[in-house]
Amino acid sequence: MTESVLVPPAEGRAVLVRAGQHVRAVDVEGGQVGDLFAVAAADQGEYASAGHTRVAIRKLFPRPGDPVLTNRRRPILSVTADTSPGRHDMLYAACDPARYALLGVESPHRSCAENLRQALAEHGFAVPVVPQPLNVFMDVRAGEDGILTSHPASSGPGDYIAFQAHIDCLVVLSSCPMDIVPISVGGITPLALQVGQAP
Amino acid sequence: MTESVLVPPAEGRAVLVRAGQHVRAVDVEGGQVGDLFAVAAADQGEYASAGHTRVAIRKLFPRPGDPVLTNRRRPILSVTADTSPGRHDMLYAACDPARYALLGVESPHRSCAENLRQALAEHGFAVPVVPQPLNVFMDVRAGEDGILTSHPASSGPGDYIAFQAHIDCLVVLSSCPMDIVPISVGGITPLALQVGQAP
Repeated sequence: MTESVLVPPAEGRAVLVRAGQHVRAVDVEGGQVGDLFAVAAADQGEYASAGHTRVAIRKLFPRPGDPVLTNRRRPILSVTADTSPGRHDMLYAACDPARYALLGVESPHRSCAENLRQALAEHGFAVPVVPQPLNVFMDVRAGEDGILTSHPASSGPGDYIAFQAHIDCLVVLSSCPMDIVPISVGGITPLALQVGQAP
Repeated sequence: MTESVLVPPAEGRAVLVRAGQHVRAVDVEGGQVGDLFAVAAADQGEYASAGHTRVAIRKLFPRPGDPVLTNRRRPILSVTADTSPGRHDMLYAACDPARYALLGVESPHRSCAENLRQALAEHGFAVPVVPQPLNVFMDVRAGEDGILTSHPASSGPGDYIAFQAHIDCLVVLSSCPMDIVPISVGGITPLALQVGQAP
């Protein structure tokens, strides 16, 4: 990997990934949920879209070999490898100040939505809406009856999910600050983004 | 019902629903999928959001008694009744010109995304993005393995799903023009929107 960016606990970072390059989202210590977003470098109105991706792959989450589509139905990333137990979520919106308010948190609280905005702003980007992210290492399961159950992340130290970019894009990863609902294990810990020419 | 609006086959229509009022999405002839959107009357940047709703209800689709949340996590509608077999979808993006192009359709084709824009424009509205809709009467099932399978609509003539509005909103219903993938049964047929004081 030619570039590695540490995502501090409860913060977000962005890396520019060129078409053809690979990017890994790494769970450094294990058990940490990350919210991953991808925004086209050429047009900030085009970004990875959960709803459009599901239509294309007919799965709740892309697996190795599957593309991630934008809101214009163009592949922006493809999953190339996954060393984790393979439990990820693409059903839940990113946490935001309104989410923490509804959970009864009265003081300011970091969120993946704000982390996205800050990480993009550092690269001169802004998005019109907060896209629904790929919640890597987040274990939400859908029963046959449509009931969703949330389980603590089962990823171990160093586990990663890797993607190849199809178009130049900013990939944002937020170490999810959620500490009210137990989706991460062992406190909020760092993640890493690694960019390179090989998976 | 005080107001009934026919949604012609493959077209879309919008109705203004005041807080406290009820609105039904009716499958007039049966077997027809509809894409339903709700946009806040006071702020077009606030609309029914699939990802935020799932977090709140922990289900793939709201059932009677469940709220539909906006992208600001406010209830905009609640489901009050459902006379259909209860098969609906909130996983798939609205069809749009890009979807039909990917399916090999070379001539212009109506779409729910364009129907949304047209129906909103008739009321002087516009949305920054096409929200992911509530695909009423659309039967998409998620297996325990995360694989999605699509089945033809099982709703019968006159079946409806009813909602109560929590805030003033424009409710848009599109008779889904999808005739390539067999999600509707017996051709593309009309739907209806019925607004009133009672469910």
